[in-house]
Amino acid sequence: MITYDYITKIYYKDIDQMGVVYYSRYFEFFEQARTEMLKGIDLIVTDIEKEGYYLPVVSATADYKEGARFEDKIIIRTMIKKLPQARMKIDYEVYRKTDNRLLVTGHTVHGFIDKDGKPKRPPKFLLDRLSSEFHQ
Amino acid sequence: MITYDYITKIYYKDIDQMGVVYYSRYFEFFEQARTEMLKGIDLIVTDIEKEGYYLPVVSATADYKEGARFEDKIIIRTMIKKLPQARMKIDYEVYRKTDNRLLVTGHTVHGFIDKDGKPKRPPKFLLDRLSSEFHQ
Amino acid sequence: MITYDYITKIYYKDIDQMGVVYYSRYFEFFEQARTEMLKGIDLIVTDIEKEGYYLPVVSATADYKEGARFEDKIIIRTMIKKLPQARMKIDYEVYRKTDNRLLVTGHTVHGFIDKDGKPKRPPKFLLDRLSSEFHQ
Amino acid sequence: MITYDYITKIYYKDIDQMGVVYYSRYFEFFEQARTEMLKGIDLIVTDIEKEGYYLPVVSATADYKEGARFEDKIIIRTMIKKLPQARMKIDYEVYRKTDNRLLVTGHTVHGFIDKDGKPKRPPKFLLDRLSSEFHQ
Repeated sequence: MITYDYITKIYYKDIDQMGVVYYSRYFEFFEQARTEMLKGIDLIVTDIEKEGYYLPVVSATADYKEGARFEDKIIIRTMIKKLPQARMKIDYEVYRKTDNRLLVTGHTVHGFIDKDGKPKRPPKFLLDRLSSEFHQ
Repeated sequence: MITYDYITKIYYKDIDQMGVVYYSRYFEFFEQARTEMLKGIDLIVTDIEKEGYYLPVVSATADYKEGARFEDKIIIRTMIKKLPQARMKIDYEVYRKTDNRLLVTGHTVHGFIDKDGKPKRPPKFLLDRLSSEFHQ
Repeated sequence: MITYDYITKIYYKDIDQMGVVYYSRYFEFFEQARTEMLKGIDLIVTDIEKEGYYLPVVSATADYKEGARFEDKIIIRTMIKKLPQARMKIDYEVYRKTDNRLLVTGHTVHGFIDKDGKPKRPPKFLLDRLSSEFHQ
Repeated sequence: MITYDYITKIYYKDIDQMGVVYYSRYFEFFEQARTEMLKGIDLIVTDIEKEGYYLPVVSATADYKEGARFEDKIIIRTMIKKLPQARMKIDYEVYRKTDNRLLVTGHTVHGFIDKDGKPKRPPKFLLDRLSSEFHQ
């Protein structure tokens, strides 16, 4: 399993009139977190795209237990639990930093396409990189 | 079943560098659509909140088949398929208006809380309103 | 002068914890409004881009008098006050629909570039179209 | 003068189909930057609000020279150039981190209001805190 803890902070832009983070914002945090997780294992998304591979989201889910608030720091634990085949699944757990309380869980599933949107098999360099992390 | 077709349009703000709507934006469209669906049956969210009831999202999912593009009109078919008990589930189907192609499906599940975040049973006026729609 | 009234509505996604629209959201509304204003005079932004012209914002300003609230309808009066030369200026006035109260004013200034970001003169078809509106 | 350098990074959520940051996003970055600048001098916005003071934006401007791109790191130099009287002006300069190139400049002007939206004079603790920074 690959795990990465991404930390970000909540600002006014994220908060709705209930005083908590608006629900769609977590999907932006998920994107930030997975971009950094991949970077942490030398898979730069910009470089993957230069190689002609795009990783669109084909499915996204979030379950909300408690809302983060303005100026909260949150940890987004980002995980790849098994090696991708046609698709890559990434899991997320969002914790409030002060008390480590679990606020949100979720996952995204990513396909692989080329520049014209045609499905592709995941690139070998990506599978190799993930595989070497799994077998450390 | 309650069904409502909400139409909106895609602008630059919604589009990412793949040239399609960024995945989290659909959850904003879902919110717009369900607000109008409820309004269509005389349930104004602002009024519900004035009565002391808030409807936070406790779960949200989207499955992406194809991306909407800049200046596309989309139809968000919004559905309540069964009467809520403790929670209310709303389903969504997003179609491109020009060719009626299904782009995205999804759902949200809503709890009922008071101003301080304490869970409440769904208000009677809301259940009555939904119920009368189901039995038309 | 070219004038266009664009109407939109405020949803939860737009509102911050002060209970009013978050300040950056008005720039999204401005974009929606100017896209529709241009469409109203047969200048489709998608088509302009297909001709190889992009209209990036080079300057943007908003002055906030009063905040719009959840479920408010707002009118965005969108104006081109003089024919563009190297750059095109668009003015905006945002009114609350119920009482016509002026909430926000602002403007954007747009340059013209090609796909590679190189400055271009505004395209003739655009100047001709605007000009014919000014001389009606 | 008070100066604070806030660093953030650009993700897919920020990028439009021109491949650069969508123009309204910089106002979110400005908010993040000023929140951290104030925190850097022990003025926590959450605490200011608990004291009954809100700092709505009354005016916002940005001038765009060049667009930041996906995975760029940017520095937002955030400045208070003179002590606020009725209103507080904050200036911003956005630099790309790799080459220190100036991408965007801007400013926001903030009023002071109470919870009901009534204008107030800036709180003494805030003026004192800013003043002591100016006279260091």
